[in-house]
Amino acid sequence: MLPRRVRIIGSGLLGASLGMRLLHLGAQVDVEDASPIAAALARDLGAGDLASDASPQPELVVVAVPPDVTAEVVCRALERFPDALVIDVASVKEVIGREVAAHPGAERYLGCHPMAGRERSGAIAADSDLFEGRPWVICAREGAAAPEHIALTRELALDVGAIPYIMEAGQHDRAVALVSHLPQLVSSLMAGALRGAEESDLALAGQGLRDVTRIARSDASLWASIVAGNAPQIAPILREVGEQAVALSRALHSTGDNPVAGDGALAVARTVAAGNEGVNRIPGKHGGAPRRYGHVIVLVPDQPGQLGRLFGDIGEIGVNIEDLQMEHSLNQPVGRAELSVLPASAEGLAAGLGERGWQVIVEGSEK
Amino acid sequence: MLPRRVRIIGSGLLGASLGMRLLHLGAQVDVEDASPIAAALARDLGAGDLASDASPQPELVVVAVPPDVTAEVVCRALERFPDALVIDVASVKEVIGREVAAHPGAERYLGCHPMAGRERSGAIAADSDLFEGRPWVICAREGAAAPEHIALTRELALDVGAIPYIMEAGQHDRAVALVSHLPQLVSSLMAGALRGAEESDLALAGQGLRDVTRIARSDASLWASIVAGNAPQIAPILREVGEQAVALSRALHSTGDNPVAGDGALAVARTVAAGNEGVNRIPGKHGGAPRRYGHVIVLVPDQPGQLGRLFGDIGEIGVNIEDLQMEHSLNQPVGRAELSVLPASAEGLAAGLGERGWQVIVEGSEK
Repeated sequence: MLPRRVRIIGSGLLGASLGMRLLHLGAQVDVEDASPIAAALARDLGAGDLASDASPQPELVVVAVPPDVTAEVVCRALERFPDALVIDVASVKEVIGREVAAHPGAERYLGCHPMAGRERSGAIAADSDLFEGRPWVICAREGAAAPEHIALTRELALDVGAIPYIMEAGQHDRAVALVSHLPQLVSSLMAGALRGAEESDLALAGQGLRDVTRIARSDASLWASIVAGNAPQIAPILREVGEQAVALSRALHSTGDNPVAGDGALAVARTVAAGNEGVNRIPGKHGGAPRRYGHVIVLVPDQPGQLGRLFGDIGEIGVNIEDLQMEHSLNQPVGRAELSVLPASAEGLAAGLGERGWQVIVEGSEK
Repeated sequence: MLPRRVRIIGSGLLGASLGMRLLHLGAQVDVEDASPIAAALARDLGAGDLASDASPQPELVVVAVPPDVTAEVVCRALERFPDALVIDVASVKEVIGREVAAHPGAERYLGCHPMAGRERSGAIAADSDLFEGRPWVICAREGAAAPEHIALTRELALDVGAIPYIMEAGQHDRAVALVSHLPQLVSSLMAGALRGAEESDLALAGQGLRDVTRIARSDASLWASIVAGNAPQIAPILREVGEQAVALSRALHSTGDNPVAGDGALAVARTVAAGNEGVNRIPGKHGGAPRRYGHVIVLVPDQPGQLGRLFGDIGEIGVNIEDLQMEHSLNQPVGRAELSVLPASAEGLAAGLGERGWQVIVEGSEK
């Protein structure tokens, strides 16, 4: 059951996106923000009405402010709206939960983390479909949260298209430290190493470097707040990765000019093999063990309409594309589109595309 | 002018792919490999004839063996084929160049690096279009290499569809240490950290982690040989990244449970900002400064034929897609396709897709 009267505090990307979606769904949404200009922008973009003294008392308050001020705003909201359930959407949970727990209204609070960030921020990047298909973590300790609060929050997550996961705050923070915060920092550190590079060196950059550094475009102040709020979880795993890099560097130093001397080759082989093992644990598109797909690689001339023609042809052939990856490099006259399909469909797709004049390579099914 | 008689030594991914392409172009290609089974496989896949005592003397010898044995095989080839130009395709160049330089036939050698590796290896993954649009580095010192050898090698690169770059071996090795070897090690180290994770933690993995760890699937023994051969270039930049990670971890440790204490937030902000600066230096698809695109995001239901229907519609609308990215996450009912188009085309594309029933979000042009 959708909450009818919702107050959103904080009109950034998440707050405004949530307002838009709830408004579409028919809720009365009132938006407030420490910055009146930001609140007005969110209203103009269709995220709700501007909150005022005349606004109705909400059933649900969503606190969508930066992590470092979330606990304070939640506590204040518990006082201002004594009948409402108050949730937040910050990406760290344990430190906020601990601060809020001391408040007398704490039983009306549930910490949430809709995992729907993006590289862009602010209401201007908002999107009522932002939560579609994304995990929405609800932090609740077994038996500690009121079942009706959990039920309402689950409904909210489902209403905006997200997938609710219920877990304890500590588990959440440990998980995101590993699968979200550590990759961000690693990507940023890698990208930072490019600052002093020669332009001619960067001309040799390929898809690997581009993939590893894609999320290095993220917002610095937002991430400072996220990572500082989860410092106890991140510090040890980041130190471990850093120390491994230093140890590997030392082994390579022992190898020096002579590739068969020292421990360099063995240390690299162990590092890459450990990475093979780790990456294979990441679940595939639909969760669970990675699905095996067949891959069909198509060369796409870099001319207007070619990709459109390709997918028009794929539509005709009638095969579903499970995933796709475009590969480009410097000055190249063609791109490579790697289409992932169910293994049984790969040959038919390749044959159909070949008949339609495409240059095609089929690959055996693999992870 | 295509060399007519080519000997390929080493029938792995690069050797076999090159053989296939040169055979298509009409050259006489003879393939040999330390493993007769591997050579026979390459022949069966269409990479050339099996080399024998009856094979003609080649004009061009391509040494395509692992980096750690390349110099030795090149020297032996210079002796066996006294009239041929000998090139290699190993991904490190200075150490090989130095070893070969001592050989009396060294003026008939040119080091090359076609930057066309992939996550899979062996002749079974070979592809006559592997080099299409990829950089092909030719290592030559100003005035030191014979112009006719450089010309022949340039022609070869262009014939197989690659883009030749001429640079000194030291510059090449420094460049690939930064844009290829360091990202590989960083990705592997990140992926290695996932080995001990709980399955439920990994369920929260999103696109960021997947991008950062994609190349962590690479082959361990191949990379051991590549990185050990470039140890002097990689060791210092890897140490720098590792030490920065350790220092950042220490700052986060000083922050501990209290997000506003210590240096954690500031250190993270500086790291992410440095990454922003670095990633913006990576050239765009066509080289030079990154082009600005408009982005149109389309929600694609996870049902057969939807992506085909989408690209059929885009073909009808007549807009050229410059790049695209699919985003999926756990158990989600829809994917998000981010289409990059010239800024002037974004609105028309979005409108056209909207008319055809797609859920669309347009974003302002940006890098």
